[in-house]
Amino acid sequence: MSSSNINFRITPRAVDHGQWYQDVIRAAGLAAYSEVPGCMIIEPNGCALWNRIRNCLGARIEATGHEDMMFPTLIPYSYFKREERHIEGFAPELAMIERLRGKVLEDPLCLRPTSETVIYRYFAERIQTRADLPIMINQWANVFRVEQRTLPFLRTMEFHWQEGHTAHFSEEEARAEALLMGEEYRRFIQDELAIPCISGRKTPRERFAGAVDTYTIESLMPSGKALQCATSHYLGSEFAGAFGVQCIGAGGALMPVHTTSWGMSTRIIGAIIMTHADDRGMVMPPRIAPVQVAILPVGGADDEAIQAMVRAVRDQLAAVGIRVRVDVSGERIGRQHYAWEKRGVPLRLTIGRTEVAAGTVTVTRRDTGEKVVLSLAGVEEKVAALLEAQHHSLLGCAAGRLADRTRTIETLADLEVGQAEGAGLFAAGWAGGEAEEVMLKERFETTIRCIPDRPCVTLPRCFLTGQPAREQVLIAKSY
Amino acid sequence: MSSSNINFRITPRAVDHGQWYQDVIRAAGLAAYSEVPGCMIIEPNGCALWNRIRNCLGARIEATGHEDMMFPTLIPYSYFKREERHIEGFAPELAMIERLRGKVLEDPLCLRPTSETVIYRYFAERIQTRADLPIMINQWANVFRVEQRTLPFLRTMEFHWQEGHTAHFSEEEARAEALLMGEEYRRFIQDELAIPCISGRKTPRERFAGAVDTYTIESLMPSGKALQCATSHYLGSEFAGAFGVQCIGAGGALMPVHTTSWGMSTRIIGAIIMTHADDRGMVMPPRIAPVQVAILPVGGADDEAIQAMVRAVRDQLAAVGIRVRVDVSGERIGRQHYAWEKRGVPLRLTIGRTEVAAGTVTVTRRDTGEKVVLSLAGVEEKVAALLEAQHHSLLGCAAGRLADRTRTIETLADLEVGQAEGAGLFAAGWAGGEAEEVMLKERFETTIRCIPDRPCVTLPRCFLTGQPAREQVLIAKSY
Repeated sequence: MSSSNINFRITPRAVDHGQWYQDVIRAAGLAAYSEVPGCMIIEPNGCALWNRIRNCLGARIEATGHEDMMFPTLIPYSYFKREERHIEGFAPELAMIERLRGKVLEDPLCLRPTSETVIYRYFAERIQTRADLPIMINQWANVFRVEQRTLPFLRTMEFHWQEGHTAHFSEEEARAEALLMGEEYRRFIQDELAIPCISGRKTPRERFAGAVDTYTIESLMPSGKALQCATSHYLGSEFAGAFGVQCIGAGGALMPVHTTSWGMSTRIIGAIIMTHADDRGMVMPPRIAPVQVAILPVGGADDEAIQAMVRAVRDQLAAVGIRVRVDVSGERIGRQHYAWEKRGVPLRLTIGRTEVAAGTVTVTRRDTGEKVVLSLAGVEEKVAALLEAQHHSLLGCAAGRLADRTRTIETLADLEVGQAEGAGLFAAGWAGGEAEEVMLKERFETTIRCIPDRPCVTLPRCFLTGQPAREQVLIAKSY
Repeated sequence: MSSSNINFRITPRAVDHGQWYQDVIRAAGLAAYSEVPGCMIIEPNGCALWNRIRNCLGARIEATGHEDMMFPTLIPYSYFKREERHIEGFAPELAMIERLRGKVLEDPLCLRPTSETVIYRYFAERIQTRADLPIMINQWANVFRVEQRTLPFLRTMEFHWQEGHTAHFSEEEARAEALLMGEEYRRFIQDELAIPCISGRKTPRERFAGAVDTYTIESLMPSGKALQCATSHYLGSEFAGAFGVQCIGAGGALMPVHTTSWGMSTRIIGAIIMTHADDRGMVMPPRIAPVQVAILPVGGADDEAIQAMVRAVRDQLAAVGIRVRVDVSGERIGRQHYAWEKRGVPLRLTIGRTEVAAGTVTVTRRDTGEKVVLSLAGVEEKVAALLEAQHHSLLGCAAGRLADRTRTIETLADLEVGQAEGAGLFAAGWAGGEAEEVMLKERFETTIRCIPDRPCVTLPRCFLTGQPAREQVLIAKSY
């Protein structure tokens, strides 16, 4: 833990949301700026959080039959040119190496913005017959997209993610895979990160460059902007066709396979911060928190009775798998509380002479600040229950906010009023096309976040054109 | 598991060592070539091995008080120029981005070959007083060094590693840290990977660019060449000085801190392959093996009694933490054996009608090919014992080979004879300097691998100059 961050003051969220966000990150030791434009340094508390996300989501990815691989970071530029819409989407964001050892490269090497192209070359070699399918792989990697405006975790030139890539014999199987992984993301984000979210499809305009369908997991931040937490794409067979990923079909002819890709990135840490943190600093959702419980000894560095109880409680909690740390800073109790609070640790247990005498521990909840005194017998179960209660409470708060700030609109005027009144997410009927989406973006800075799988209402008419609604959509500003 | 690798033939090691090495890699599904020069694709079996190494070594790094961080991959070229010997060492190997969004960069961005420079900028910001020390961090990352000749795992343009970086108040503390991490590597490599190794110091010529002392862990491959498995550097205070990493010393004056760095890379997978694999394919050391036991059902896809026993044994093994997989390929038993053998799985358990009738399982050891029949009662303990036995057997074989191929030399003629007779590692007295090291490299393709911590003999005179020996050294060709 960095002592130098202890005295860091956090700007209140109501005063300046952007500054609050960056202050929370610095005060909690999540990330720091680097001198490389748009690249950040992920500090120990942020890295521990990402490692936990990696382990938990990784276990789900493995359990659904995917194997990890690692592909080269550098991809020949010529690969990107094979799929027209793909290069169109990514060309402006590519960083390239044009010379090596003083020699100009005929085919420059790009820092991967995503790995479809290099992975499909590999698939093409591995797939000959139907027996070679499906191939289901995943990669944890750093990727690079040259961005003009950057924001820690949310939009950086380099970021970390996992990208899953699969190839299937049939469209049906590939679509089922893309939907399944979308659902895995939704559950992971809700069940582990306590972020309520909405699953749906993207409109053609908002799809991944080259995808036939993009399934998205969207959440609404307290700022009123939506954040895309993860996406899963059904890429059809065109991508595979462009890279010669084919297999012998029923009639003996070569047919391109059907592919999917899906990813979740360090961006999710931005969603965790914005959803749960407060003016006192970070709030880690208990199930994913790198440290779930901090034990703070009250002025007892030399008090053997206090130290013995600290060790006993620590061992009791650790024995049931609770991630616990003892504060060994030797600071006075107020500073200990302050430090662990900013870092977002869900529960702080204080143990001093009062507690030793009474055979109790005093527990402070990070989310509510509430204090509870627990007797030592079965303390591990009570602490586990408090962690679970905090998870449900955080999820409930966020779900309440999402409901409060979602509004049904039937006309363009409704959107204008809703925006003025601070609503964030607008449910509407839709019969528009790309031109209407461009207008929404230009005039209202909003986009269609998704066509939700389970619309909250069904509106008969398009709020823009007045035509009978072709589908139900959710509209919002977004990060 | 890739069905397309099943029929892959492995060139015998005695016929062509280089081809054997590459064949083992392909047949075992460890890695594949990519079209990007010098970059490889790490396949599922190789990636699972690296993930296990990451978890096990990572736990040791955490237990010794280090925290994970992630720094940017791109480092401004100007950073490298601050430490003269460092830029001298790395300049030829740097890959650079010279333009972004069409604009020429004044300060090009380098793909990190190692991260001291960017990490020291961060240290400089974090360290003011002695209370901020030590800082002890670790990073799992991909790094890039432009190489002219490449070999899978051993020498690639992009590779994966962990790099530890620490800053301390005193030289004593920093040296102790560098030595401790060297010792952690030695133990990890010997205890988990079953590779016997020698720890020692590098000569000035062989040190890391800019280091005051480099501690190395060397092993001898069956080819007769040494392989540097991991290194740990005491960097003195010059590196810190060049980057302004200072703290207020005893007299109130600013003093540069003392730093260390230490790393182990995917290169270690090359060492595992060469040390343990044979003409039948990969041999995974049991303690690190991603899959420790494969259960092969003998012709029993529809036989409920066989399937029930397969599940029961699988659950019994998994319950004590053994990493077990059931072969679900439906292939005939010979092909199942062949596939898992190539992949290097330590134990193969067959279960067919014979086994169901007798209440036994038949176990085949990967290293010796030996078969044992085990009764079901307490099978998990017997399997665990067989895994341990295989670990010790692999380590013993490799240690025997190391001893057999180490020779004491007292003259240059001894070296020539020893090389001709196929010895690999030469223990010698040394009083030479850089000129003599250059001669050894040019005439005999050998280098001083290290000045061992525990020399096997003490030779009074330098084998080259005849002068009284200043130190004892180990000389070898190397990867």
